Order: sequence, then C-alpha cells, then structure tokens
Amino acid sequence: MRRAETIASAANPLVKDVRRAIARGSLTGHGLAVAESFHLLEEALRSECEVSCILAAESARSAAEGYGRRMAGTRVAVLPDALFQGLSATETSQGVMALVRPPVWTLEQLLGARPLVVILDGLQDPGNAGSIVRAAEAFGATGVLFPKGSVSPYNPKTLRASAGSLFRLPFLESVDPATARAALRERGVALYAAVPGRTGDADGLPAPADFSGGCGLIIGNEAHGVSAEWRGAAQDVSIPTAGVESLNAAVAAGILLYEARRQRVPPAMSKP
Amino acid sequence: MRRAETIASAANPLVKDVRRAIARGSLTGHGLAVAESFHLLEEALRSECEVSCILAAESARSAAEGYGRRMAGTRVAVLPDALFQGLSATETSQGVMALVRPPVWTLEQLLGARPLVVILDGLQDPGNAGSIVRAAEAFGATGVLFPKGSVSPYNPKTLRASAGSLFRLPFLESVDPATARAALRERGVALYAAVPGRTGDADGLPAPADFSGGCGLIIGNEAHGVSAEWRGAAQDVSIPTAGVESLNAAVAAGILLYEARRQRVPPAMSKP
Repeated sequence: MRRAETIASAANPLVKDVRRAIARGSLTGHGLAVAESFHLLEEALRSECEVSCILAAESARSAAEGYGRRMAGTRVAVLPDALFQGLSATETSQGVMALVRPPVWTLEQLLGARPLVVILDGLQDPGNAGSIVRAAEAFGATGVLFPKGSVSPYNPKTLRASAGSLFRLPFLESVDPATARAALRERGVALYAAVPGRTGDADGLPAPADFSGGCGLIIGNEAHGVSAEWRGAAQDVSIPTAGVESLNAAVAAGILLYEARRQRVPPAMSKP
Repeated sequence: MRRAETIASAANPLVKDVRRAIARGSLTGHGLAVAESFHLLEEALRSECEVSCILAAESARSAAEGYGRRMAGTRVAVLPDALFQGLSATETSQGVMALVRPPVWTLEQLLGARPLVVILDGLQDPGNAGSIVRAAEAFGATGVLFPKGSVSPYNPKTLRASAGSLFRLPFLESVDPATARAALRERGVALYAAVPGRTGDADGLPAPADFSGGCGLIIGNEAHGVSAEWRGAAQDVSIPTAGVESLNAAVAAGILLYEARRQRVPPAMSKP
C-alpha cells in the first residue's frame, strides 16, 4: 500500500467531501458510499466491492494500516481522534470509515428469474430502510427499489443498518415511480401494498397473500403508509394485529418477507 | 383547566427536569415519562394514563390548550418555540410533549393466564425496544421484561417507537436478571433465546420452535446477542436466513412473535 497519509485539517478536501455526504445522507462528490465501522469494511471486502479509501482515527491507525496492506491501491488517511469523531455520523464508528464504490445494478438483475422485489414508497427512516434491505437479503428477495422520494440507500445510516446487505443485494435508487410501475407491470410482477391490519384481526390470523409467484411488496411512508398511486397498482396485504394501529415499517416488511420465503421454499426441500 | 402558564427560561425547574430525563433516557425526577407528539398524547389518553402536564411550543399553544380544557387538573405550560425545540429529543415532536404517569404492573399481570413474555437482554437501541413492545402488543404477548442492563422503557425514544404500546402492555424494568430467571422457571415458563440462523438455512425453513404453551422469548444485545446466563436457561431458537449474519433485533423479534401468534391462535377461530 501507499503509506498512510495524515490529515490534520477540517478543511481538507477529502474531509469536507465526507462531511457533506454524511450531512446530506448521500454519496460523496466522487460517488463513494460512506461505510462506518470495521464490520462494514469487512462486509465490503467480503462482497468484493471496491474500497477506495479508508479514513481512520489516530487511535485506530494500526488496524487501518493492516487493512491497507491487504488492499493494493487503497488510500489510507489518518485523522486526529477529535477530527474523526466530529466527522462520524455514529457513536459506534470504531474509528474507521471506508469509502466504497457502490455496485451498479440493472432492472433485470433486480428482478431475477422469479422476482421478489421490495419497493420503498416514501420510506424516510434510514434505519428502517437498512433493516428492510437486510431482511430482504435474508429471505431471498431478488432486489429492492428506492423510488424518488424515499430515503437514499447511500445514506450512511441506511448502509449501516443494512449490515452490508446493500453491498450484495441488487437495488435501484431515484427511480421514477410511474416508470417503475410500468416496468413491473410489463414483466407481470404482482404488486402487494402493505397496509395496517385492523385491530382484532389477530384473533384469526389468515395467510397474508399469495407470494409464490413473481411479486413486489410495497412498504410505505412511516406516517402516511403506501401512496394512492402505488396502492392503486397493487392489492392490499395486511398483517393481522391486535391493539395497535400498525407495526414499525421494518418489522412489518420483515414479517411479510418471512411469510413470502415460507411460501416460496419448495416443500420437498423443507427440513423437519 | 388552570390557565396555560408561560415559561420563558431554560433555567425553569420543569424545563430542567424534562431536559435531564431526555438526556438520561429516563423518567423525570417526578417519575413521569416524556411522551413527544400529539399522537403519543392521544395514545396516553386512549390508554387512560394520567397526563400530569402538557408542554407546548408557542406555535402549538391553541392545540395544547384544547387538550388542557378536556383534562381537569392537567398543567399546561407554553414555551417559546426556540426553547421548546432545544428541549425536544426529536425533529418531529410537533411542538408538544406530555408528561405521563407510567402504569405500574405486577409480575402476575405480565405473565397472564398463558404467558408470552418478551425479555430484552441487554438490548440497547431505544428504537428497537419500542418497536418490539409495539409488535409484542400486536401479537398478543402478555408482557415485556426489561432486565437491568437493557435500555429503559422510559427513554422518550423507546416510548415514541412503541407508538403508545408502553401505555398498555404490562412491563417490568430494572429487574435483576437472576431473580427474573428464577421467577419464570418457578412458573414453568419455557424460555427461548433468539440466536442468528445459519447462512443457507433459508433453503428449508423449519418452524422456529413450539410457542404454543407459556413461553418467554429472549432478544439479546444488538452486537453480542443473548448473554450466556440467559442462553443457559433457555433453548435456542433461530429464524432461518440466507446470506446475512443476523437480522435487526426488532425485525427478528417481530417475526418470532408473529410465528408465536400463529401457533397460539386456536385453529377453530382461524378465518379463511
């Protein structure tokens, strides 16, 4: 590796670029995703994503240099602890941030042979979005759509909550919603809009819907639910609940994905 | 109601008490829970909790006074917008905070006739804790245990993420873990510790465990999982997943509670 360089000034262009990305919840000006913590750095490597740069606090210098030695061509920059902490979006950054070149996906990759797509319609909380991507990978979804108006997959908090799934699972962001609906319709993807279950329904839990074919699961905004436009293109699906108006968006998505996976596993392959 | 009073100083004792509770993630010095937003205020009223005080930003004065007129004996205090915003823990407080007397529960209420208890073993994130309580109520759990070392149910962010379920679902907090284990064992509650599913297991999804009897579901710390002490008193249960090391703690808890509810609904009552 190149020698680790030292950055002492908050006005350094790299530091400014990273700070802007964190504040905006977006990629850096150079199109890189900010991945905080050693865990996410490991996940980026495991997923064979290009790690362009490692920023480390002085107290994490030797660990960062260790990674740098394994990765030819990766820039390693060390910052004074106070400067690093001021930059970090989280309290648990562990003194390291990786700048990662995000994978680029096509709609065909996102849909796969038998689509199970999650559509985040106006979802705002990056923790929810990341948790949903993580559950989507866990239950065999083929991809996640981030239409315009939802939180960015490149928000460092989304990336962190995804625990690395955003390095592997196909996704498209800033998609025009009408274009996305047309493309999904054209490919015969059955859409389901997650809506709150009515109070009391938990007394007789029905299976939510038929997820066995090519399907898309729409998760709406935390406060307002699925928009009229998406709901109009979909069937409603709800999780029967008692006492509460609704579930947290990530919890609801996780349950529907779990249910979908259950339906899609070939019975012959089920273990006792 | 008493006339709404105006508080102009950050040094006012009530303001200082609320600020300390938010910073510590705990009750106020007077034993009141800080509930932000009109939604939580409504939930407190719907749940017949005692609302001791409403703090409002000047811009939300008339709405707050409207509530005050409905609630005899409730103190209404109006703060300049800037002072209120500086106090608020969230960006979406809507200019109102209710100080709510939390309900007090017994272990017997928490266990009910056929216990389905969630035990938060070292769980740290208040958003996760609140989302889990919300799912616990939704799927008919009888209560939630917050042993020592987990985030507080009275953290304003926990309360907010619970969307009001903490006003209704029995819970106990700061319970000594060894005492809790002994009490659960004595009452024949079967304990299940949620542990990550092994990669690849999603190819043959088994039912996670038998939740049909009196049981307790242990959800561990976000980074380290369930502790050795709790795991030693329980059977492991895991959600089969592919590709990821684990799920978000609230998502995992939601799925296991959904699964438990499915098993506990009498088949005769199921709707088609």
